[in-house]
Formats: sequence, C-alpha cells, structure tokens
Amino acid sequence: MEDNLKKSLRLKFGLSELSLNQIMLNKSLASFGDALVNFIYSLALSEKNLELTGAKVKSQVLAESLKRVDLRKHLPNRSDRHSQGDAAEAFIAYAWLQDGFNLEEATTLISTHVDEPVEAFSKFLELIKKRLMMH
Amino acid sequence: MEDNLKKSLRLKFGLSELSLNQIMLNKSLASFGDALVNFIYSLALSEKNLELTGAKVKSQVLAESLKRVDLRKHLPNRSDRHSQGDAAEAFIAYAWLQDGFNLEEATTLISTHVDEPVEAFSKFLELIKKRLMMH
Repeated sequence: MEDNLKKSLRLKFGLSELSLNQIMLNKSLASFGDALVNFIYSLALSEKNLELTGAKVKSQVLAESLKRVDLRKHLPNRSDRHSQGDAAEAFIAYAWLQDGFNLEEATTLISTHVDEPVEAFSKFLELIKKRLMMH
Repeated sequence: MEDNLKKSLRLKFGLSELSLNQIMLNKSLASFGDALVNFIYSLALSEKNLELTGAKVKSQVLAESLKRVDLRKHLPNRSDRHSQGDAAEAFIAYAWLQDGFNLEEATTLISTHVDEPVEAFSKFLELIKKRLMMH
C-alpha cells in the first residue's frame, strides 16, 4: 500500500532527474518531508516508549545529522540551521519517494537510537545515502 | 510493511479494550494522531496538487467533521474546538492502529474532496466509524 502511494507521487513529480544539490534545496520536498519525518519520529518514539506520542524533530538535530554524514557540503556556505534542517527533510522525502526505504525500517532504525536523536538521524541519513547511490 | 508497524503498536498498547469515549479523550492517541493526520493530509494535498507539500489540518476542520458524523455527542458538552480536534485525531489514530484503514485509501479518499476539507474529513470519519463498528 505504501508502495503504491510512493509510485503514484514519484510518477507525478518526476523527481528522478534532480541532482543532490537540487534535492536538498527543493522547498516542496522539504515541506512534504517535514510531515513525513515527524510521522516517522512519532512512530519511532511510540515504538520505544511506554505510550503513543506525536513529536516534531528539531532543525538542530537534522542539521547536526546532515553534517555528520557529510551532506552539509552540498549546501551553500551561508545556509543557516533551518535551511540545513529543510535540506535533510527534503533528502529523506526524496529517498522515501524513490523507494530508498520504507516506513517500517525507518521506524525500527530510529527507535533503536531514539535516546540520541542526532545519532538516530545520522544513521538513518547514512543508510539512505548509501541506498540512493546504489540505484 | 505498514501492517507490521500497526500490529507492533497494537500489541504493545492493547487498545482494543477502550470504549469510544475513552478513545476520544485519550491524549496519547491524540498526540500520535496529530502526526498521522498531518502526514495523510500532506499526502492527499500532494496527490491532488501540482507540487509536493506538507500541511497541518486545522482543529476547526476536524471539530466540524466530528459534529457532522455525529461523534461530537460522545464528548463532554463543555469540550472546546481544540478538544474536539484532538478527539478526531485520537479516533483516526485508533482506527489506523486497529487496521480500520490504510494510508493509501485514506489519501485517495481525502484527495478526492481536498478542496472542501470538512467534507473530506467527514467522509473519512464516516468510513472509519462504519469499519470499526463492523469489527
């Protein structure tokens, strides 16, 4: 079911021709990615903790994770923390739409490291970076 | 994949014993439901519009939809709009976890009526209300 959704959006928006730089600066991807990332993070926290919960991932966490996995260099030097967070969200949205990961594996990976959000998102970004390069 | 996620959370939180009233007043379900509903709405808007987007559903829309499908009556009379929105989010989260709907059908249904959000969410709530009663 998740796969059909991704396929439909992938066909509609024809994202496959974007460069890494274009992906990370794409405001639409970042906007959609914000909802996607918060949903995944909410799933991961709920999976790990004693109650269901909804949560937003801080820009700071995403920005620091982006730097750790060496993706920060694809952004202009002047990029602030908020733009770096957007770039991470855009990259994650792109990867999901391109079938680089599914919700279940993202949730499992992030929930394993959820007490250290930067570690959790660094590992997640590292995984999808590798996956996308294999395509 | 989506099904495994739901199953894992369903087993963990044992929600099946909650009454409708308890579901709609459950703060954890509402908190998780907020992330779920915004993700579904973002998928539906992206499916319908010319670009990918992320969006939040207003409490007012959810409150009005809850009233239209006759679920408002299960809440205390004094409930404000925000509590009514929370109740709708909790009900949607519960239904998703209980396998009352999947992301793809929710997205399709809501995207069909996305220009009239109250209509969209009323139809969605009506559907899952029927589904849950059949269980």
